[in-house]
Amino acid sequence: MAFTYHRTVRFQDTDAAGVVYFANVLAMCHEAYEASLATSGFNLKAFFSNPAVAFPIVRASVDFFRPLFCGDLLSIRLIPQKLQEDSFTIAYEVMATEKVVAKAMTQHVCIDAESRKRQSLSVEMEQWLQQWGDR
Amino acid sequence: MAFTYHRTVRFQDTDAAGVVYFANVLAMCHEAYEASLATSGFNLKAFFSNPAVAFPIVRASVDFFRPLFCGDLLSIRLIPQKLQEDSFTIAYEVMATEKVVAKAMTQHVCIDAESRKRQSLSVEMEQWLQQWGDR
Amino acid sequence: MAFTYHRTVRFQDTDAAGVVYFANVLAMCHEAYEASLATSGFNLKAFFSNPAVAFPIVRASVDFFRPLFCGDLLSIRLIPQKLQEDSFTIAYEVMATEKVVAKAMTQHVCIDAESRKRQSLSVEMEQWLQQWGDR
Amino acid sequence: MAFTYHRTVRFQDTDAAGVVYFANVLAMCHEAYEASLATSGFNLKAFFSNPAVAFPIVRASVDFFRPLFCGDLLSIRLIPQKLQEDSFTIAYEVMATEKVVAKAMTQHVCIDAESRKRQSLSVEMEQWLQQWGDR
Repeated sequence: MAFTYHRTVRFQDTDAAGVVYFANVLAMCHEAYEASLATSGFNLKAFFSNPAVAFPIVRASVDFFRPLFCGDLLSIRLIPQKLQEDSFTIAYEVMATEKVVAKAMTQHVCIDAESRKRQSLSVEMEQWLQQWGDR
Repeated sequence: MAFTYHRTVRFQDTDAAGVVYFANVLAMCHEAYEASLATSGFNLKAFFSNPAVAFPIVRASVDFFRPLFCGDLLSIRLIPQKLQEDSFTIAYEVMATEKVVAKAMTQHVCIDAESRKRQSLSVEMEQWLQQWGDR
Repeated sequence: MAFTYHRTVRFQDTDAAGVVYFANVLAMCHEAYEASLATSGFNLKAFFSNPAVAFPIVRASVDFFRPLFCGDLLSIRLIPQKLQEDSFTIAYEVMATEKVVAKAMTQHVCIDAESRKRQSLSVEMEQWLQQWGDR
Repeated sequence: MAFTYHRTVRFQDTDAAGVVYFANVLAMCHEAYEASLATSGFNLKAFFSNPAVAFPIVRASVDFFRPLFCGDLLSIRLIPQKLQEDSFTIAYEVMATEKVVAKAMTQHVCIDAESRKRQSLSVEMEQWLQQWGDR
């Protein structure tokens, strides 16, 4: 079951061309990721400053199909997928007024935050992958 | 009657000190302003890219009382006040878990967007001031 | 001949994990693009708010090899390449202390800013592509 | 002797009104602060993630006199001043083409980063205040 996050485009998201600045769409997708973690019971403060384990992004990409404007009401649909024992990807679909305006992807690895060495995903992340993943 | 906006602190709002980057609190306050305009029926896309009239900020200030962390659930209370025929201020109170974490202010003037000369507030803005102002 | 842009990582680029927030690396690459345009004689204000022609990004991607910290001195090497009559890509290589920390790509199309229809690249953009492109 | 920082306005600094988004001017002033610290020999990574001592901003304000556009070349003049044993302010003057476009202020306190209790400024910060302060 995919997770869906709702977000209004804000003035600060836009640039002098009158539309959303491209990199901000990836930031909105990351917000959807954060919202899905919170919904699954994760404490975001602890999750993102955990001195033991971290899930840095090693790859991100985004395709834009239509421009986004200040005030647009977005739905971001998120589907995570396990990649290997120590990594996962998240696919995002950004919709406005029932049209797909962008698609994005982030790829994450699980590391020991101190040594920055890769390690297996925790039980909690496996559960989060199962909860929102596409099966 | 003041307007209240709810907002979760996101990862991108934070900095390497582990708390929200100071200037982002003003941006969150501006989001509350945008949300109050939308609630009053303004079309945000038109409002913020109107070639005829604009309401640029000529002064802003913010006081911080407590640090803000990723995942914190904020309530931002906004009270606008007319200053002169062509200007208004907005007072913001940022609350987290029932404590005031920051207070901010923005001062706006009404200008002809082409000539950038000051002009009187429109009827719609007068109504917005009445709707959310403190009387 | 590639264009190289120098940039210091700033506090606002970082997040609570202590490193640069992922989407900000794409923004830094866009700065390199802007700097290359300015060096080629483009007026940036006119270029980015031109009511006649625009070059929106239709695709972007980035790979991260190492974390970036506040104060890091970056060199961003940019190589544009013509794709079709109405499009081009830019490859970016982000270096810190002589190590590649990230690689990115943006793909742009040339459009009539009013109708948003695709059109051929202007002579000036062809020259920019020749000036910094890899031949 | 004041410190001067040079900065080009970038596309991401702007918003759909075609000028720099207000809160980004404070972020540019903070960059000037970071540059002055680096010039005085501080290691920025250590300074901003020091687990022992931090200098959070408790108050900030900014006045805008003219709009700023993408590509504008800015000079930001910074003058710090000691306030009390545990606090200082920084005054910023933002210039473009020899005109003052904005003035800003940040007020900082020195705290133990663990307990968040106030403590006296370190010798290094006293020296930084002397180096760039107005005497």
